[in-house]
Amino acid sequence: MNTPSVQVIARQSRLAARQLSSTSESVRNLALAKMADSLESVRRQILEINAQEVAKARQDGLSAAMVKRLTIDDKVFQYMLTRLRKVARRPDPLNRVLEGHTNPNGLQVYKKSVPLGVIGIIYESRPNVTTDAAGVCIKSGNAVILRGGSEALQTNTMLTDAMIEGAVEAGLPEHAIQMIRVPGHEAVGELLKMDDYVDVLIPRGGKGLIRRIAEETRIPVIKHYDGICHLYIAADAVPAQAVELAVNSKCQSVQVCNALETLLVDQRCAEQMLPLLQKAFDANDIELRGCGKAQQLLPDIVPASEEDWHTEYLAPILSIKVVGGIEEAIDHINTYGSGHTDGIVTQSLSNAQQFEQQIDSASVLINASTRLSGGGDYGLGSVVGISTDKLHARGPVGPDELTTYKWVAYGNGHLRG
Amino acid sequence: MNTPSVQVIARQSRLAARQLSSTSESVRNLALAKMADSLESVRRQILEINAQEVAKARQDGLSAAMVKRLTIDDKVFQYMLTRLRKVARRPDPLNRVLEGHTNPNGLQVYKKSVPLGVIGIIYESRPNVTTDAAGVCIKSGNAVILRGGSEALQTNTMLTDAMIEGAVEAGLPEHAIQMIRVPGHEAVGELLKMDDYVDVLIPRGGKGLIRRIAEETRIPVIKHYDGICHLYIAADAVPAQAVELAVNSKCQSVQVCNALETLLVDQRCAEQMLPLLQKAFDANDIELRGCGKAQQLLPDIVPASEEDWHTEYLAPILSIKVVGGIEEAIDHINTYGSGHTDGIVTQSLSNAQQFEQQIDSASVLINASTRLSGGGDYGLGSVVGISTDKLHARGPVGPDELTTYKWVAYGNGHLRG
Repeated sequence: MNTPSVQVIARQSRLAARQLSSTSESVRNLALAKMADSLESVRRQILEINAQEVAKARQDGLSAAMVKRLTIDDKVFQYMLTRLRKVARRPDPLNRVLEGHTNPNGLQVYKKSVPLGVIGIIYESRPNVTTDAAGVCIKSGNAVILRGGSEALQTNTMLTDAMIEGAVEAGLPEHAIQMIRVPGHEAVGELLKMDDYVDVLIPRGGKGLIRRIAEETRIPVIKHYDGICHLYIAADAVPAQAVELAVNSKCQSVQVCNALETLLVDQRCAEQMLPLLQKAFDANDIELRGCGKAQQLLPDIVPASEEDWHTEYLAPILSIKVVGGIEEAIDHINTYGSGHTDGIVTQSLSNAQQFEQQIDSASVLINASTRLSGGGDYGLGSVVGISTDKLHARGPVGPDELTTYKWVAYGNGHLRG
Repeated sequence: MNTPSVQVIARQSRLAARQLSSTSESVRNLALAKMADSLESVRRQILEINAQEVAKARQDGLSAAMVKRLTIDDKVFQYMLTRLRKVARRPDPLNRVLEGHTNPNGLQVYKKSVPLGVIGIIYESRPNVTTDAAGVCIKSGNAVILRGGSEALQTNTMLTDAMIEGAVEAGLPEHAIQMIRVPGHEAVGELLKMDDYVDVLIPRGGKGLIRRIAEETRIPVIKHYDGICHLYIAADAVPAQAVELAVNSKCQSVQVCNALETLLVDQRCAEQMLPLLQKAFDANDIELRGCGKAQQLLPDIVPASEEDWHTEYLAPILSIKVVGGIEEAIDHINTYGSGHTDGIVTQSLSNAQQFEQQIDSASVLINASTRLSGGGDYGLGSVVGISTDKLHARGPVGPDELTTYKWVAYGNGHLRG
């Protein structure tokens, strides 16, 4: 295959997007099914080429975490297929009538959901983003331009080619799914200039990458920044449940954006809770850093600095603060949190309602692990990321979030008076 | 009154926004009613101070158009009050449950609408933006920071003070409505840096102003760029209706964003339509500029250049192009249009549906004047602008468009497995 320039790709995407906007739900769902089938038919080749890239990554000294993210084993591959097939079964995000009415003068007005157009996805090593992003974009009638990390170039190429084959077989335009295959940073720079053709960029990766992209382009960017997630244990929390929720929120996976980073414990239950929590976290090898009051109750923990309250550790470290009550907890979260995911453990309805109302975050969890915030548990099927923006998409970004709307008015010679 | 710094204003707004997010619908609606009452009680003083600023503007040699925009007469004043009272009667945009379900494991998940937070409005001379913007922001539970043009400083100060009095009387926080009273461009520069406190900026003014703001700030900007609006007269259009719609779209007001700028006429009816159109536009003193084919039929019109198809005249000039059919019309609009408002005149359902589906614009009008696109006819009540963005808000920006949402999940000790 030749490697078209980024501008050619972007222009082709714009044309494909126009065709995609008129495709029926059944064609788009058939495409998703055929994309999964087509991937399945080259499973062995994909796993082989991926194994070669994994070996090369190890040789090049990439971190164990990066190598893990790069790897497609049977389980990951199956998961990729399952998600494509699942997103096919979701309700159509397009052509929903969001509101509508007929004016007294007879003008019929309605607002309906339509695709955004062309979506650019810039991501690092995980090849599952290739299939997840393509799936969510095709479901929502958008053309997608994929740009993955160089360490996964061969894997991503094979994944993309298989998906294109399936999509075209179902009747989608040839350029509905495209991939920038030119290596090097310049290609990303080119993509950032394509504001005439690309409607939105979704970078997946470190905060630095996202910030750089947002600052270097006029294309709107859906951003996925920090998850400085909190759990507040209210005075009336059931102790055993509070410990379980805190441990699951922190330990189920420490490197993810909805993992717990700061635990807030009400002073009225701190004396009882903190020793129980320390025992549980010690058993999970979590380093605890505490405020002055927490240290008084747990003398052997590390003191937490101001810096700790601002930190997304993504590591087996947890900061603990004793707070005077729910107001102080809410104030701390709204001040230091990143608006990603925050939870409360309480038996009180009024606590739950106040917390739900006043916490300014994408996800607010009541008596549930912070790890449950996300597309899966929210019923979105596949997602392309978790937005920490407040405009357009907030929280998990699935097919619905990749739509916009248009206003349509039917008249019969209606004029403005 | 003292003049707090922009940073103090921004910080106060953030705190007010937190309180506002918990206010009930009835308190917000009462505030809107009291804001209108309070304005009414100082009607005479407002008209007086405005008359002084209008006189000064004339003296300073401001254009007639700017002076007109600056002027509040009895009718404009009444309109401002009416809009505040109307927006009070609209359904509550907050706490709507947008979707929800209970997972098989019993986790209850829902998504509800919440305010964006702090909205900054940067605008030029029209003082009615002061009341419209405050009304839409308060309705949607947002704190607002107003920054109008220096030529209307006294008028805006008096309007804002009256509204604050009414809002506070109804029980809203003191800083729910604020105005930057410091003169000079530096204050706007300061506001652009307040990304820790301000959630969105809405500039109202020329394209240059909007572009500059969007490029100089990290705060998300809802942009209101060009309206290069089209009307396509299909081969089967009823001639008299087509002429009426074209004239109303162009002439009802030439200086507004949804006024017609380019008329597309199907070649199969061009011979019949163009002389009728010319006669009607001549009667309205509109200069016509045509493509080659249009000139063949109307030899005395000005030739249109490539530049014309890209131009938002906002003036009594109209470009006319003869097109081969609906595909060419759609292609022209999607290529040269600005995605604001585009219409078709046709008797054919399949034409109407194809046009509706394939035109990539915020507003698509079938057999209705382009001048009907907007908050009023779409039933939004008051608006703060018309967005030409595709993300978040597209088209008229009313109370609903100034909300975001949060995901809320209620569990009973739910963990991630």
